[in-house]
Amino acid sequence: MKVQDRHYRTIWLADDGRAVEIIDQRWLPHEFRVVTLATVEDVATAIRDMWVRGAPLIGVTAAYGMAIAMANDPSDAHLERTWHDLNETRPTAINLRWALNEMRSTLSPLPPAERASAAYARAAEIADEDVTLNRSIGSHGLEVIRKIAATKKPGEPVNVLTHCNAGWLATVDYGTATAPVYMAAEEGIPVHVYVDETRPRNQGAQLTAWELNGHGVPHTLIVDNAGGHLMQHGMIDLVIVGTDRTTARGDVCNKIGTYLKALAAHDNGVPFYVALPSPTIDWTVDDGVKEIPIEERSADEVTFVQGKAEDGRTLKVRVSPEGTPGANPAFDVTPARLITGLITERGIADASREGLKTLFPERS
Amino acid sequence: MKVQDRHYRTIWLADDGRAVEIIDQRWLPHEFRVVTLATVEDVATAIRDMWVRGAPLIGVTAAYGMAIAMANDPSDAHLERTWHDLNETRPTAINLRWALNEMRSTLSPLPPAERASAAYARAAEIADEDVTLNRSIGSHGLEVIRKIAATKKPGEPVNVLTHCNAGWLATVDYGTATAPVYMAAEEGIPVHVYVDETRPRNQGAQLTAWELNGHGVPHTLIVDNAGGHLMQHGMIDLVIVGTDRTTARGDVCNKIGTYLKALAAHDNGVPFYVALPSPTIDWTVDDGVKEIPIEERSADEVTFVQGKAEDGRTLKVRVSPEGTPGANPAFDVTPARLITGLITERGIADASREGLKTLFPERS
Repeated sequence: MKVQDRHYRTIWLADDGRAVEIIDQRWLPHEFRVVTLATVEDVATAIRDMWVRGAPLIGVTAAYGMAIAMANDPSDAHLERTWHDLNETRPTAINLRWALNEMRSTLSPLPPAERASAAYARAAEIADEDVTLNRSIGSHGLEVIRKIAATKKPGEPVNVLTHCNAGWLATVDYGTATAPVYMAAEEGIPVHVYVDETRPRNQGAQLTAWELNGHGVPHTLIVDNAGGHLMQHGMIDLVIVGTDRTTARGDVCNKIGTYLKALAAHDNGVPFYVALPSPTIDWTVDDGVKEIPIEERSADEVTFVQGKAEDGRTLKVRVSPEGTPGANPAFDVTPARLITGLITERGIADASREGLKTLFPERS
Repeated sequence: MKVQDRHYRTIWLADDGRAVEIIDQRWLPHEFRVVTLATVEDVATAIRDMWVRGAPLIGVTAAYGMAIAMANDPSDAHLERTWHDLNETRPTAINLRWALNEMRSTLSPLPPAERASAAYARAAEIADEDVTLNRSIGSHGLEVIRKIAATKKPGEPVNVLTHCNAGWLATVDYGTATAPVYMAAEEGIPVHVYVDETRPRNQGAQLTAWELNGHGVPHTLIVDNAGGHLMQHGMIDLVIVGTDRTTARGDVCNKIGTYLKALAAHDNGVPFYVALPSPTIDWTVDDGVKEIPIEERSADEVTFVQGKAEDGRTLKVRVSPEGTPGANPAFDVTPARLITGLITERGIADASREGLKTLFPERS
């Protein structure tokens, strides 16, 4: 997507053909910093400390980490050690393990001398596959937006609400929840996005708003509390969010607060869609509320907020009193009954076991 | 309630017997500042710019504003002008209008020379009445907490979730939503409060947490997104919130985001109570969603967050990109169907026209 009229992906090969460059997302939206990851240690730090985040982007970054490792030392021992070092950076991220396994199974059978070039080729493929997946999700979601646009007066925008950042910054390009929006904008459909701030880490305010701003998509930032009111007053045409894990029956685990928006959408007859590449479906889990363990993150994310001070510095301020403890569950589960449809790369499924099986019959 | 072991109200007459002193709530929780309001302009500024906030406290502050006006110029013209100037400071708060009307109807019939002393006397009465009202609300709400406590194992706390600040800082003392909690704590019932941060102005993080902390009530700060997840997992026994305006059929207009918590409570069978002194009932309005105009406040409240920096200064940081606009509806309406009961000074009413009429038959 565009950043000040120039096209970017979130990760790309450096001019030397060995290192990779990424957008260091910790400083957005106030500072656009591109950094070079030249070693496996650099890659591990970037994933662990969330210079890059979003399951698909983490996977691609790890794949390039394996390639960098092979360029330095293509031995079996180094291949194994790199797999383990990178796998430990974010132990719960499904795409991370998937990408590392994919690289290992590509590289292991090859003679060491051939591993580096094969690794860079496969990492590039994984990156391109992510873009293809997201474009497919985008084209299916675009159909939903087109239908709503057809009911509008000329020039009247389709109002989309989204929560957190399932945008291009979470992937290589296009994003998942944002892909239909970007494709609608490319097609000239007037579209406007209400962006949930997404406390505590403010991915909406800091990342989604920055993305939409950079690409020139009209949008408005709102606090997480506001969406229900907007839906009561007919100001939201549809909700599209991403997901970290979707169960076999269509329950959706996503950023904390998603469930509240789904309740409001249901109460007001607003369509609520979840955009997901099929690797985020966990076919082994059924009841999301009961079965998915929810990561409890540091209370500091609740008690401190990061932003840009008047003097231009990016810093953290404490919002609550010193003696007040905080609790910080990072995700919640939206039951399938509240979801209008799951937008996958193969089409839109009902949020149900049957709906998913129709699109993914090989999983039956 | 207590602040570092000393008892405070939120507003009191200054030693000169003319001005009033208030806690300037803009600096909480990091700085405890008491300021003197000596003129009607001071009072208007304090209400408009939210040095004081909360419907009951706004009403009492406006009443003292009328008294200060009468001390300076007790003419009919000044009485009328002050009524209008103060009435324009906050559009949604019904107590503001109620208190101003109360003062006007007390003062108009009197000869100008008698108005100042009558005004201070009536303002003091309105303040005391607020405390009495809140204690009555507290004792009715306490019954609900007692019943839940009886189902708990020894020492296990009753977990209350509250949104925004309907605490003593929003009133003269005790608060509305917090009165049952403070009275339960006084009675030795183990009670624990989950405090919603309440973006954008963070009244939960900055005021409710500060109150509970100062008075020694166990509590945990959460982001507004987290409540639904906690309810799904049985971690909330009841929700108690305040209200800025309640309609004749029991719809509740309260801080933005209240509706989302009511939906989650309803979806999970968690009792959802609204604590309200009867002056916040607007008997002229029926359908809250359709009929209550919602104040749209500055987008700066969304794009900036105030907190304490590392160097100890209280300052604002920008969280979102410069080019991103914000929308900031300050309240939403929770339909009566989602409300378990309305805790008034006369007892707990069903959230319905019939329920309210039973407790307030004189309004039939």
